[in-house]
Amino acid sequence: MESSDLYPVSRLAAAQEATAAAGLGALLLTPGPDLRYVTGYEALPLERLTCLALPAEGEAFLVVPRLELPAAEHSPASRLGIEFVPWDETEDPYAIVAARLGGAAGAGGRVGAVGLADRMWAMQSLRFRDALPGADQVLAGTVLRGLRMRKSPAEAAALREAGAAIDAVHAQVPGFLRAGRTEREVGRDIAEAIIAAGHSTVDFVIVGSGPNGASPHHELSDRVIQAGEPVVVDIGGQMPSGYCSDSTRVYCVGEPPAGFAKYYDVLQRAQEAACEAVRPGVSCEAVDAAAREVIAAEGYGEYFIHRTGHGIGLETHEEPYIVAGNAEPLAPGFAFSVEPGIYLPGAHGARIEDILICTEEGGERVNHRPRELVIV
Amino acid sequence: MESSDLYPVSRLAAAQEATAAAGLGALLLTPGPDLRYVTGYEALPLERLTCLALPAEGEAFLVVPRLELPAAEHSPASRLGIEFVPWDETEDPYAIVAARLGGAAGAGGRVGAVGLADRMWAMQSLRFRDALPGADQVLAGTVLRGLRMRKSPAEAAALREAGAAIDAVHAQVPGFLRAGRTEREVGRDIAEAIIAAGHSTVDFVIVGSGPNGASPHHELSDRVIQAGEPVVVDIGGQMPSGYCSDSTRVYCVGEPPAGFAKYYDVLQRAQEAACEAVRPGVSCEAVDAAAREVIAAEGYGEYFIHRTGHGIGLETHEEPYIVAGNAEPLAPGFAFSVEPGIYLPGAHGARIEDILICTEEGGERVNHRPRELVIV
Repeated sequence: MESSDLYPVSRLAAAQEATAAAGLGALLLTPGPDLRYVTGYEALPLERLTCLALPAEGEAFLVVPRLELPAAEHSPASRLGIEFVPWDETEDPYAIVAARLGGAAGAGGRVGAVGLADRMWAMQSLRFRDALPGADQVLAGTVLRGLRMRKSPAEAAALREAGAAIDAVHAQVPGFLRAGRTEREVGRDIAEAIIAAGHSTVDFVIVGSGPNGASPHHELSDRVIQAGEPVVVDIGGQMPSGYCSDSTRVYCVGEPPAGFAKYYDVLQRAQEAACEAVRPGVSCEAVDAAAREVIAAEGYGEYFIHRTGHGIGLETHEEPYIVAGNAEPLAPGFAFSVEPGIYLPGAHGARIEDILICTEEGGERVNHRPRELVIV
Repeated sequence: MESSDLYPVSRLAAAQEATAAAGLGALLLTPGPDLRYVTGYEALPLERLTCLALPAEGEAFLVVPRLELPAAEHSPASRLGIEFVPWDETEDPYAIVAARLGGAAGAGGRVGAVGLADRMWAMQSLRFRDALPGADQVLAGTVLRGLRMRKSPAEAAALREAGAAIDAVHAQVPGFLRAGRTEREVGRDIAEAIIAAGHSTVDFVIVGSGPNGASPHHELSDRVIQAGEPVVVDIGGQMPSGYCSDSTRVYCVGEPPAGFAKYYDVLQRAQEAACEAVRPGVSCEAVDAAAREVIAAEGYGEYFIHRTGHGIGLETHEEPYIVAGNAEPLAPGFAFSVEPGIYLPGAHGARIEDILICTEEGGERVNHRPRELVIV
């Protein structure tokens, strides 16, 4: 996939327009998903400041440590036609940004409110607070969320590619799982497979065996997997494109324990119901409710202890969140997980997760591994 | 290695004492190296708030999403005897922290200045700004740096373990490198080997062939490696202990180009000189100067375009920085890289990097691969 499709040059103007419309003086984007979304530049998150300053009016510029200049020049950001402002080890890059923005903001020399990258580190935001004492700090996400939630066709293709990669890992999981191995040993095999399947990073590997499966965000432990135990495997990584994968399947080492099949069947119907509910105009909370109602109707409501899903793109968790109270209507291009779970504390649990993209016709899943319980 | 050695319970009291001594009202530590250092808890960095609130006086508490409570309870933080305060999806965790700190700070209900984890995301620091309007925000690093820079014997052992793991990867690099392969293909093999060698994450993989070797922070490209080209390989990851590896070696695919051997020899002597300079009481800038003087004396000064090194521990880059202007004297337990480089723009470059721990006797290297140019 060409980065010019995935990170079109037009994004910079769109972000600038949204900044002006929001009444902000500028966005300040340090390395992370906001910067990459706007510029395509996958800058290293370092203590040395790299920052795109995007004023509501005037020219954007990228402040960059001189050491990083070649990387920036070889990145997609070089196509944007913006000035790169390298700084040397003994300079103060925050002062450089402040001086330039003061000028750019016009006669008053005041930039107004600035939108900080949502993941900007405190070591940077506090420096900007001091360098721009007149500027109220808000989140860049308030400006960028509207853009980032609606995935372009190229972004949707990148999410499909990520989905295929993590599906290829799930296809190998039955070969890794057997009684007598620890969760950590299985997790190591999975991590290697995530890289081998084409991801550039391993973002998380959850192998929750037996009672650990009842803790949704359990990761890995030295617990030895026993025969007859369900194992929740929730895995994901980031592709070279920047886009993320995330998928959960449940495996059982031999025959499942009594009662498990009953609630697994309920869960599978709940996940299906939520996926079926996806279409433009339906609210995020309605998708959550679609899963929750099936589970509650069967008497397992108290064991479904988290929201139904989260947006995904350049971050594994981003907007929109599929949760009660979120009335945001789905629109074509929204991408998110649908992952209800049922957790019996101290015993076992289950979760089924696919990533979906909202299309005009409904929800398109990017994960295609069988959703039935896999006996290994 | 036992987490009770690596993350002793006594750290919490030491951090509290330092907080009081610095005149701060509290530390607010979100997931990341500061939180892990103080508690041992490797919390997931999520949009949902997890935060250790450590008041200068009174009881610390950990605010945690209810979903993460089992993970927190199974983490080393459970040994600290602090209260875990779970919050539900519809609650405001920032208000919970503010209300409790207001009480803890005494009759005035004011917490004073708060120290934010250096890597706290803006999406959290701005919420704390609003929830604690009377509290000036500073960096927790101002309090914790003195503790974190002096590695304990268990931390030094963890860095040695990380060093051995990345050495094992470098030992395999000659088998991955050959003319006709792209940097990205080689990088993929290296990433798999980093995981296979015992790291839990791949933090960075730099394969800089030919002219790309002249850009110190170049990562990977689709450039095809040619015969006769030097290749800079700078790689690292994080171990399950939390401690990081980072080591650079230079390989040449066949015989090196004219002039390369001459400056590589200079570089090797410079790296040796800086390592020899390490001992308690010597300043960080003196170690930098030791490398720089050798390189400058041979006429390559303008081609050594970055500082000599950075501290390492739970972060790949942390204090102390081995850089001109840093008069901080080394002390036993300080751990950092020594990595001078010489970069000929458009042609090629070289860098040699080891991690050292300052001991009473001098610098102990944790990397032991040969530092001579490796012809493959």
